[in-house]
Amino acid sequence: MKKFFLFLLFVAGCAKNSTPGLTADDQAIRQTLNRQVAAWNQGNLTIFMEGYWKSDSLLFIGKKISKGWDSTLLRYQHSYPDRKTMGELRFEILQLDFASATSCLVTGHYFLKREKDNPSGIFTLLFKKKKGGWVIVYDHTS
Amino acid sequence: MKKFFLFLLFVAGCAKNSTPGLTADDQAIRQTLNRQVAAWNQGNLTIFMEGYWKSDSLLFIGKKISKGWDSTLLRYQHSYPDRKTMGELRFEILQLDFASATSCLVTGHYFLKREKDNPSGIFTLLFKKKKGGWVIVYDHTS
Repeated sequence: MKKFFLFLLFVAGCAKNSTPGLTADDQAIRQTLNRQVAAWNQGNLTIFMEGYWKSDSLLFIGKKISKGWDSTLLRYQHSYPDRKTMGELRFEILQLDFASATSCLVTGHYFLKREKDNPSGIFTLLFKKKKGGWVIVYDHTS
Repeated sequence: MKKFFLFLLFVAGCAKNSTPGLTADDQAIRQTLNRQVAAWNQGNLTIFMEGYWKSDSLLFIGKKISKGWDSTLLRYQHSYPDRKTMGELRFEILQLDFASATSCLVTGHYFLKREKDNPSGIFTLLFKKKKGGWVIVYDHTS
């Protein structure tokens, strides 16, 4: 009986950390995105930015093309100076396409719920697996 | 002398088909894009579409997300019914990022020169190397 109880604990532990049908990489990428959403909704842009590759080569395509982690954070801080402008963020992941074991193209929708408007759009993200885990190295949002 | 002449012919032949510093894959992708531009400027949307993966899984992200080669061609035919609306197309390739030996993310600008306006934008293309060569399997244009 004790063994069975330990077995149940083990199963519960596994279930807590994994979703059936998803690979570890798939999950890691989704977790990164979930952490970004949580950070955004807590008004924490620095933690939100942890999802991005901390490199001058990070490429961000919005209305214009900009490069680098620092300038991306500055742009976010400029465009979203307070909780009101940040609103409440939600992602809807449409597909993950692993181009290799260390790179994955992610397509999704973002939805921002704000007092006066509800902007939304589509994103294409290139995730790469770096030493510290999966990070966004390329973001095309429109 | 005859050998030297043959050698010169050989060098000229190589130069015709390759650009120094570019890999064969890099060149093949650029050639696909060049062929697309040429076809567009000849008003030939079907040849233009040969740059895309002829599959129902082709993903095209413009203002909305659409799927499939057939529906992409239809959309183009609807949006660009004649030479006047097609105008003159030009691409400016900004970077090629090989995620693997068979997939490459391409970033660029497109410029359309028309009588009444000059629309332009940014594209992110995922090329994959299929049996028939490199084709666009994913297009996010904004």
